[in-house]
Amino acid sequence: MNERLGCQLAFALELDKEKNVLRQTHLTGHGRRENDAEHAWHMALMAYLLREYANEPVDIARVMLMCLLHDVVEIDAGDTYAYDEAAKESQAAREAAAAERIFGLLPEDQASEFRALFAEFDAGESADARFARAMDNLQPLLLNDSNDGGDWKEHAVTVSQVYGRQRRTSLGSVELFRVTDEILQRHIAAGHIRSEAKEGGNA
Amino acid sequence: MNERLGCQLAFALELDKEKNVLRQTHLTGHGRRENDAEHAWHMALMAYLLREYANEPVDIARVMLMCLLHDVVEIDAGDTYAYDEAAKESQAAREAAAAERIFGLLPEDQASEFRALFAEFDAGESADARFARAMDNLQPLLLNDSNDGGDWKEHAVTVSQVYGRQRRTSLGSVELFRVTDEILQRHIAAGHIRSEAKEGGNA
Repeated sequence: MNERLGCQLAFALELDKEKNVLRQTHLTGHGRRENDAEHAWHMALMAYLLREYANEPVDIARVMLMCLLHDVVEIDAGDTYAYDEAAKESQAAREAAAAERIFGLLPEDQASEFRALFAEFDAGESADARFARAMDNLQPLLLNDSNDGGDWKEHAVTVSQVYGRQRRTSLGSVELFRVTDEILQRHIAAGHIRSEAKEGGNA
Repeated sequence: MNERLGCQLAFALELDKEKNVLRQTHLTGHGRRENDAEHAWHMALMAYLLREYANEPVDIARVMLMCLLHDVVEIDAGDTYAYDEAAKESQAAREAAAAERIFGLLPEDQASEFRALFAEFDAGESADARFARAMDNLQPLLLNDSNDGGDWKEHAVTVSQVYGRQRRTSLGSVELFRVTDEILQRHIAAGHIRSEAKEGGNA
Protein backbone atom coordinates (compact mmCIF):
# COMPACT_ATOMS: atom_id res chain seq x y z
CA MET A 1 0.00 0.00 0.00
CA ASN A 2 1.37 3.43 -0.86
CA GLU A 3 2.01 6.01 1.86
CA ARG A 4 -0.81 8.35 0.78
CA LEU A 5 -3.46 5.64 0.96
CA GLY A 6 -1.98 4.43 4.25
CA CYS A 7 -2.50 7.91 5.76
CA GLN A 8 -6.03 8.12 4.39
CA LEU A 9 -7.00 4.76 5.87
CA ALA A 10 -5.43 5.66 9.23
CA PHE A 11 -7.59 8.79 9.27
CA ALA A 12 -10.65 6.75 8.28
CA LEU A 13 -10.05 4.44 11.23
CA GLU A 14 -9.47 7.38 13.59
CA LEU A 15 -12.91 8.73 12.62
CA ASP A 16 -14.46 5.68 14.28
CA LYS A 17 -13.77 7.26 17.69
CA GLU A 18 -16.34 9.98 17.03
CA LYS A 19 -19.02 7.33 17.64
CA ASN A 20 -18.03 7.34 21.32
CA VAL A 21 -18.41 11.10 21.87
CA LEU A 22 -21.75 11.56 23.61
CA ARG A 23 -23.94 14.65 23.35
CA GLN A 24 -26.54 15.99 25.78
CA THR A 25 -29.35 15.32 23.31
CA HIS A 26 -31.43 12.16 23.69
CA LEU A 27 -32.86 10.07 20.85
CA THR A 28 -36.60 10.15 20.18
CA GLY A 29 -38.81 8.03 22.41
CA HIS A 30 -36.85 9.25 25.46
CA GLY A 31 -33.96 7.13 24.23
CA ARG A 32 -30.28 7.03 25.09
CA ARG A 33 -27.88 9.94 24.56
CA GLU A 34 -26.95 10.63 20.95
CA ASN A 35 -23.35 10.47 19.77
CA ASP A 36 -21.53 12.86 17.46
CA ALA A 37 -21.39 10.53 14.45
CA GLU A 38 -25.14 9.93 14.48
CA HIS A 39 -25.78 13.64 14.91
CA ALA A 40 -23.54 14.47 11.95
CA TRP A 41 -25.24 11.85 9.76
CA HIS A 42 -28.65 13.22 10.68
CA MET A 43 -27.59 16.82 9.99
CA ALA A 44 -26.14 15.96 6.56
CA LEU A 45 -29.33 14.21 5.44
CA MET A 46 -31.46 17.06 6.78
CA ALA A 47 -29.30 19.58 4.91
CA TYR A 48 -30.00 17.80 1.63
CA LEU A 49 -33.68 17.30 2.45
CA LEU A 50 -34.28 20.93 3.44
CA ARG A 51 -31.93 22.72 1.05
CA GLU A 52 -34.85 24.51 -0.65
CA TYR A 53 -35.22 26.61 2.53
CA ALA A 54 -31.68 28.04 2.53
CA ASN A 55 -31.71 31.86 2.40
CA GLU A 56 -28.98 31.89 -0.25
CA PRO A 57 -27.85 29.42 -2.94
CA VAL A 58 -25.64 26.75 -1.34
CA ASP A 59 -23.26 24.10 -2.66
CA ILE A 60 -25.06 21.18 -1.08
CA ALA A 61 -22.09 18.78 -1.38
CA ARG A 62 -19.96 21.22 0.65
CA VAL A 63 -22.76 21.74 3.18
CA MET A 64 -23.14 17.98 3.63
CA LEU A 65 -19.40 17.54 3.98
CA MET A 66 -19.25 20.31 6.61
CA CYS A 67 -22.06 18.60 8.51
CA LEU A 68 -20.26 15.25 8.37
CA LEU A 69 -16.92 16.73 9.44
CA HIS A 70 -17.86 19.45 11.92
CA ASP A 71 -17.54 17.38 15.09
CA VAL A 72 -14.42 15.37 14.22
CA VAL A 73 -12.41 17.66 16.53
CA GLU A 74 -14.51 16.44 19.45
CA ILE A 75 -12.67 13.10 19.31
CA ASP A 76 -9.98 14.98 21.26
CA ALA A 77 -11.82 18.05 22.53
CA GLY A 78 -15.02 16.37 23.75
CA ASP A 79 -18.55 17.65 23.28
CA THR A 80 -19.18 21.16 24.60
CA TYR A 81 -22.83 21.57 25.59
CA ALA A 82 -24.39 24.57 23.86
CA TYR A 83 -25.47 26.07 27.19
CA ASP A 84 -22.35 25.33 29.27
CA GLU A 85 -20.79 28.80 29.43
CA ALA A 86 -17.66 27.73 31.34
CA ALA A 87 -16.77 24.94 28.89
CA LYS A 88 -17.40 27.25 25.94
CA GLU A 89 -14.59 29.57 27.12
CA SER A 90 -11.93 26.92 26.48
CA GLN A 91 -13.66 25.35 23.48
CA ALA A 92 -11.83 27.20 20.69
CA ALA A 93 -8.35 26.33 21.97
CA ARG A 94 -9.25 22.68 22.59
CA GLU A 95 -10.76 22.32 19.14
CA ALA A 96 -7.89 24.04 17.33
CA ALA A 97 -5.39 21.62 18.87
CA ALA A 98 -7.64 18.71 17.92
CA ALA A 99 -7.91 19.90 14.31
CA GLU A 100 -4.11 20.05 14.11
CA ARG A 101 -3.63 16.51 15.33
CA ILE A 102 -6.55 14.69 13.73
CA PHE A 103 -6.55 16.30 10.27
CA GLY A 104 -2.74 16.06 10.47
CA LEU A 105 -3.09 12.31 9.96
CA LEU A 106 -4.09 13.04 6.35
CA PRO A 107 -1.90 13.81 3.33
CA GLU A 108 -1.18 17.55 3.37
CA ASP A 109 -3.63 18.52 0.60
CA GLN A 110 -6.54 16.84 2.37
CA ALA A 111 -5.42 18.03 5.81
CA SER A 112 -5.53 21.61 4.53
CA GLU A 113 -8.88 21.12 2.84
CA PHE A 114 -10.53 19.58 5.91
CA ARG A 115 -9.05 22.15 8.32
CA ALA A 116 -10.35 24.95 6.07
CA LEU A 117 -13.81 23.39 5.89
CA PHE A 118 -13.93 23.01 9.67
CA ALA A 119 -12.77 26.63 10.14
CA GLU A 120 -15.39 27.82 7.66
CA PHE A 121 -18.14 25.96 9.53
CA ASP A 122 -16.86 27.27 12.83
CA ALA A 123 -16.75 30.90 11.65
CA GLY A 124 -20.23 30.63 10.12
CA GLU A 125 -19.61 33.45 7.68
CA SER A 126 -20.29 31.75 4.32
CA ALA A 127 -23.67 30.77 2.90
CA ASP A 128 -22.72 27.08 3.12
CA ALA A 129 -21.63 27.40 6.76
CA ARG A 130 -24.71 29.40 7.74
CA PHE A 131 -26.98 26.67 6.39
CA ALA A 132 -24.89 23.84 7.92
CA ARG A 133 -25.03 25.62 11.29
CA ALA A 134 -28.80 25.97 10.98
CA MET A 135 -28.89 22.15 10.75
CA ASP A 136 -26.68 21.94 13.85
CA ASN A 137 -29.45 23.81 15.70
CA LEU A 138 -32.51 22.27 14.08
CA GLN A 139 -31.49 18.61 14.39
CA PRO A 140 -31.29 18.48 18.22
CA LEU A 141 -34.32 20.80 18.43
CA LEU A 142 -36.46 18.21 16.61
CA LEU A 143 -35.30 15.42 18.92
CA ASN A 144 -35.79 17.51 22.05
CA ASP A 145 -39.22 18.63 20.83
CA SER A 146 -40.23 14.97 20.36
CA ASN A 147 -39.08 14.27 23.95
CA ASP A 148 -41.22 16.99 25.58
CA GLY A 149 -38.20 19.27 25.93
CA GLY A 150 -36.47 16.83 28.27
CA ASP A 151 -32.97 18.10 27.53
CA TRP A 152 -33.92 21.69 28.31
CA LYS A 153 -35.61 20.63 31.53
CA GLU A 154 -32.66 18.49 32.63
CA HIS A 155 -30.25 21.42 32.24
CA ALA A 156 -32.67 24.15 33.41
CA VAL A 157 -32.01 26.05 30.21
CA THR A 158 -33.47 29.56 29.96
CA VAL A 159 -35.32 31.35 27.18
CA SER A 160 -32.45 33.75 26.58
CA GLN A 161 -29.95 30.87 26.34
CA VAL A 162 -32.08 28.96 23.84
CA TYR A 163 -32.80 31.98 21.68
CA GLY A 164 -29.17 33.11 21.90
CA ARG A 165 -28.29 29.98 20.00
CA GLN A 166 -31.39 29.13 17.96
CA ARG A 167 -31.89 32.67 16.64
CA ARG A 168 -28.80 32.14 14.47
CA THR A 169 -30.78 29.58 12.46
CA SER A 170 -32.37 32.60 10.73
CA LEU A 171 -28.97 33.47 9.22
CA GLY A 172 -29.14 30.19 7.27
CA SER A 173 -32.90 29.92 6.81
CA VAL A 174 -35.59 32.40 7.77
CA GLU A 175 -38.20 29.76 6.98
CA LEU A 176 -36.66 27.14 9.28
CA PHE A 177 -36.26 29.74 12.03
CA ARG A 178 -40.01 30.40 11.78
CA VAL A 179 -40.64 26.72 12.60
CA THR A 180 -37.98 26.83 15.32
CA ASP A 181 -39.74 29.78 16.91
CA GLU A 182 -43.13 28.00 16.85
CA ILE A 183 -41.58 24.98 18.56
CA LEU A 184 -39.80 27.07 21.19
CA GLN A 185 -42.91 29.10 22.01
CA ARG A 186 -44.81 25.87 22.62
CA HIS A 187 -42.15 24.66 25.05
CA ILE A 188 -41.95 28.01 26.82
CA ALA A 189 -45.73 27.99 27.29
CA ALA A 190 -45.50 24.43 28.67
CA GLY A 191 -42.79 25.48 31.13
CA HIS A 192 -40.09 23.26 29.58
CA ILE A 193 -37.76 26.24 29.09
CA ARG A 194 -37.23 28.57 32.05
CA SER A 195 -38.24 32.16 31.48
CA GLU A 196 -35.98 33.51 34.25
CA ALA A 197 -32.19 33.29 34.63
CA LYS A 198 -30.78 30.31 36.50
CA GLU A 199 -29.38 30.94 39.98
CA GLY A 200 -25.89 32.24 39.43
CA GLY A 201 -27.12 34.30 36.52
CA ASN A 202 -25.19 32.71 33.67
CA ALA A 203 -27.95 33.28 31.12
CA MET B 1 -46.09 25.41 9.03
CA ASN B 2 -47.01 24.41 5.47
CA GLU B 3 -47.84 20.80 4.61
CA ARG B 4 -44.69 20.19 2.57
CA LEU B 5 -42.36 21.25 5.37
CA GLY B 6 -44.45 19.28 7.85
CA CYS B 7 -43.89 16.09 5.81
CA GLN B 8 -40.17 16.80 5.50
CA LEU B 9 -39.76 17.29 9.24
CA ALA B 10 -41.79 14.13 9.98
CA PHE B 11 -39.38 12.22 7.73
CA ALA B 12 -36.39 13.86 9.42
CA LEU B 13 -37.68 12.70 12.80
CA GLU B 14 -38.37 9.19 11.47
CA LEU B 15 -34.71 8.97 10.40
CA ASP B 16 -33.73 9.08 14.07
CA LYS B 17 -34.82 5.44 14.41
CA GLU B 18 -31.95 4.30 12.21
CA LYS B 19 -29.66 4.96 15.19
CA ASN B 20 -31.23 1.98 16.94
CA VAL B 21 -30.62 -0.54 14.14
CA LEU B 22 -27.58 -2.57 15.20
CA ARG B 23 -25.10 -4.20 12.83
CA GLN B 24 -22.83 -7.20 13.40
CA THR B 25 -19.72 -5.01 13.14
CA HIS B 26 -18.04 -3.82 16.33
CA LEU B 27 -16.34 -0.45 16.84
CA THR B 28 -12.55 -0.27 17.02
CA GLY B 29 -10.93 -1.19 20.33
CA HIS B 30 -13.24 -4.23 20.58
CA GLY B 31 -16.08 -1.80 21.25
CA ARG B 32 -19.84 -2.13 21.17
CA ARG B 33 -21.85 -3.03 18.06
CA GLU B 34 -22.12 -0.30 15.46
CA ASN B 35 -25.47 1.09 14.38
CA ASP B 36 -26.66 1.90 10.86
CA ALA B 37 -26.51 5.69 11.23
CA GLU B 38 -22.88 5.65 12.36
CA HIS B 39 -21.99 3.23 9.59
CA ALA B 40 -23.63 5.47 6.97
CA TRP B 41 -21.84 8.57 8.31
CA HIS B 42 -18.51 6.75 8.20
CA MET B 43 -19.11 5.49 4.65
CA ALA B 44 -20.05 8.94 3.36
CA LEU B 45 -16.91 10.54 4.76
CA MET B 46 -14.76 7.69 3.42
CA ALA B 47 -16.34 8.10 -0.01
CA TYR B 48 -15.28 11.74 -0.11
CA LEU B 49 -11.85 11.00 1.34
CA LEU B 50 -11.09 8.16 -1.09
CA ARG B 51 -12.85 9.40 -4.23
CA GLU B 52 -9.54 9.60 -6.14
CA TYR B 53 -9.50 5.78 -6.17
CA ALA B 54 -12.86 5.34 -7.95
CA ASN B 55 -12.46 3.40 -11.22
CA GLU B 56 -14.70 5.84 -13.07
CA PRO B 57 -15.59 9.51 -12.58
CA VAL B 58 -18.27 9.81 -9.88
CA ASP B 59 -20.63 12.56 -8.74
CA ILE B 60 -19.39 12.64 -5.17
CA ALA B 61 -22.48 14.43 -3.80
CA ARG B 62 -24.68 11.62 -5.16
CA VAL B 63 -22.31 8.98 -3.80
CA MET B 64 -22.34 10.59 -0.35
CA LEU B 65 -26.12 10.86 -0.42
CA MET B 66 -26.45 7.19 -1.40
CA CYS B 67 -24.14 6.25 1.48
CA LEU B 68 -26.20 8.34 3.92
CA LEU B 69 -29.53 6.94 2.70
CA HIS B 70 -28.76 3.32 1.85
CA ASP B 71 -29.78 1.81 5.19
CA VAL B 72 -32.88 3.90 5.93
CA VAL B 73 -35.03 0.93 4.87
CA GLU B 74 -33.56 -1.06 7.76
CA ILE B 75 -35.65 1.03 10.17
CA ASP B 76 -38.45 -1.38 9.19
CA ALA B 77 -36.57 -4.26 7.58
CA GLY B 78 -33.78 -4.66 10.15
CA ASP B 79 -30.12 -5.28 9.40
CA THR B 80 -29.39 -8.32 7.25
CA TYR B 81 -25.94 -9.69 8.02
CA ALA B 82 -23.86 -10.01 4.86
CA TYR B 83 -23.20 -13.69 5.53
CA ASP B 84 -26.66 -14.76 6.72
CA GLU B 85 -27.92 -16.64 3.65
CA ALA B 86 -31.41 -17.36 5.02
CA ALA B 87 -32.13 -13.73 5.93
CA LYS B 88 -30.82 -12.58 2.57
CA GLU B 89 -33.56 -14.53 0.78
CA SER B 90 -36.31 -12.34 2.22
CA GLN B 91 -34.24 -9.14 2.25
CA ALA B 92 -35.43 -7.64 -1.05
CA ALA B 93 -39.13 -7.92 -0.23
CA ARG B 94 -38.68 -6.55 3.30
CA GLU B 95 -36.65 -3.60 2.05
CA ALA B 96 -39.01 -2.77 -0.81
CA ALA B 97 -41.94 -2.53 1.61
CA ALA B 98 -39.85 -0.37 3.93
CA ALA B 99 -38.88 2.00 1.10
CA GLU B 100 -42.56 2.42 0.25
CA ARG B 101 -43.56 3.33 3.77
CA ILE B 102 -40.59 5.41 4.93
CA PHE B 103 -39.88 7.43 1.78
CA GLY B 104 -43.67 7.73 1.47
CA LEU B 105 -43.59 10.15 4.40
CA LEU B 106 -41.95 12.70 2.07
CA PRO B 107 -43.52 15.01 -0.49
CA GLU B 108 -43.92 13.03 -3.73
CA ASP B 109 -40.95 14.60 -5.59
CA GLN B 110 -38.55 13.76 -2.78
CA ALA B 111 -40.10 10.34 -2.16
CA SER B 112 -39.46 9.46 -5.82
CA GLU B 113 -35.93 10.85 -5.74
CA PHE B 114 -34.94 8.95 -2.59
CA ARG B 115 -36.58 5.69 -3.72
CA ALA B 116 -34.68 5.94 -7.02
CA LEU B 117 -31.38 6.63 -5.24
CA PHE B 118 -31.92 3.64 -2.95
CA ALA B 119 -32.80 1.42 -5.92
CA GLU B 120 -29.71 2.62 -7.78
CA PHE B 121 -27.49 1.80 -4.81
CA ASP B 122 -29.16 -1.56 -4.39
CA ALA B 123 -28.76 -2.51 -8.06
CA GLY B 124 -25.12 -1.40 -8.07
CA GLU B 125 -25.08 -0.81 -11.80
CA SER B 126 -24.01 2.85 -12.02
CA ALA B 127 -20.54 4.27 -11.37
CA ASP B 128 -21.85 6.15 -8.32
CA ALA B 129 -23.49 3.03 -6.88
CA ARG B 130 -20.44 0.85 -7.54
CA PHE B 131 -18.24 3.25 -5.58
CA ALA B 132 -20.79 3.69 -2.76
CA ARG B 133 -21.05 -0.10 -2.46
CA ALA B 134 -17.27 -0.37 -2.29
CA MET B 135 -17.49 1.86 0.80
CA ASP B 136 -20.18 -0.42 2.23
CA ASN B 137 -17.61 -3.23 2.07
CA LEU B 138 -14.47 -1.32 3.03
CA GLN B 139 -15.86 0.47 6.09
CA PRO B 140 -16.69 -2.65 8.16
CA LEU B 141 -13.54 -4.34 6.82
CA LEU B 142 -11.38 -1.60 8.39
CA LEU B 143 -13.15 -1.94 11.74
CA ASN B 144 -12.99 -5.73 11.71
CA ASP B 145 -9.32 -5.61 10.70
CA SER B 146 -8.58 -3.36 13.68
CA ASN B 147 -10.36 -5.87 15.96
CA ASP B 148 -8.30 -8.90 14.88
CA GLY B 149 -11.11 -10.15 12.66
CA GLY B 150 -13.40 -10.62 15.64
CA ASP B 151 -16.61 -10.37 13.62
CA TRP B 152 -15.49 -13.05 11.16
CA LYS B 153 -14.45 -15.32 14.01
CA GLU B 154 -17.72 -14.80 15.89
CA HIS B 155 -19.77 -15.85 12.86
CA ALA B 156 -17.32 -18.50 11.57
CA VAL B 157 -17.28 -16.80 8.19
CA THR B 158 -15.48 -18.60 5.36
CA VAL B 159 -13.05 -17.41 2.71
CA SER B 160 -15.56 -17.95 -0.08
CA GLN B 161 -18.23 -15.97 1.77
CA VAL B 162 -15.90 -13.04 2.43
CA TYR B 163 -14.56 -12.93 -1.11
CA GLY B 164 -18.06 -13.40 -2.53
CA ARG B 165 -18.91 -10.04 -1.04
CA GLN B 166 -15.60 -8.15 -0.89
CA ARG B 167 -14.58 -9.00 -4.46
CA ARG B 168 -17.28 -6.59 -5.66
CA THR B 169 -15.25 -3.72 -4.23
CA SER B 170 -13.12 -4.05 -7.39
CA LEU B 171 -16.13 -2.93 -9.48
CA GLY B 172 -15.94 0.44 -7.72
CA SER B 173 -12.21 0.64 -7.11
CA VAL B 174 -9.48 -1.74 -8.25
CA GLU B 175 -7.02 0.09 -6.00
CA LEU B 176 -9.16 -0.30 -2.87
CA PHE B 177 -9.79 -3.95 -3.68
CA ARG B 178 -6.00 -4.43 -3.77
CA VAL B 179 -5.84 -3.20 -0.14
CA THR B 180 -8.90 -5.30 0.74
CA ASP B 181 -7.16 -8.37 -0.63
CA GLU B 182 -4.00 -7.67 1.40
CA ILE B 183 -6.06 -7.34 4.58
CA LEU B 184 -8.07 -10.50 3.89
CA GLN B 185 -4.95 -12.56 3.13
CA ARG B 186 -3.48 -11.51 6.48
CA HIS B 187 -6.58 -12.66 8.33
CA ILE B 188 -6.79 -15.92 6.41
CA ALA B 189 -3.16 -16.64 7.29
CA ALA B 190 -3.92 -15.86 10.95
CA GLY B 191 -6.90 -18.24 10.91
CA HIS B 192 -9.49 -15.51 11.52
CA ILE B 193 -11.43 -16.49 8.39
CA ARG B 194 -12.22 -20.18 7.89
CA SER B 195 -10.83 -21.74 4.74
CA GLU B 196 -13.41 -24.58 4.70
CA ALA B 197 -17.22 -24.45 4.50
CA LYS B 198 -19.15 -24.24 7.77
CA GLU B 199 -21.05 -27.34 8.89
CA GLY B 200 -24.31 -27.30 6.98
CA GLY B 201 -22.43 -26.12 3.92
CA ASN B 202 -24.04 -22.70 3.43
CA ALA B 203 -20.86 -21.13 2.01
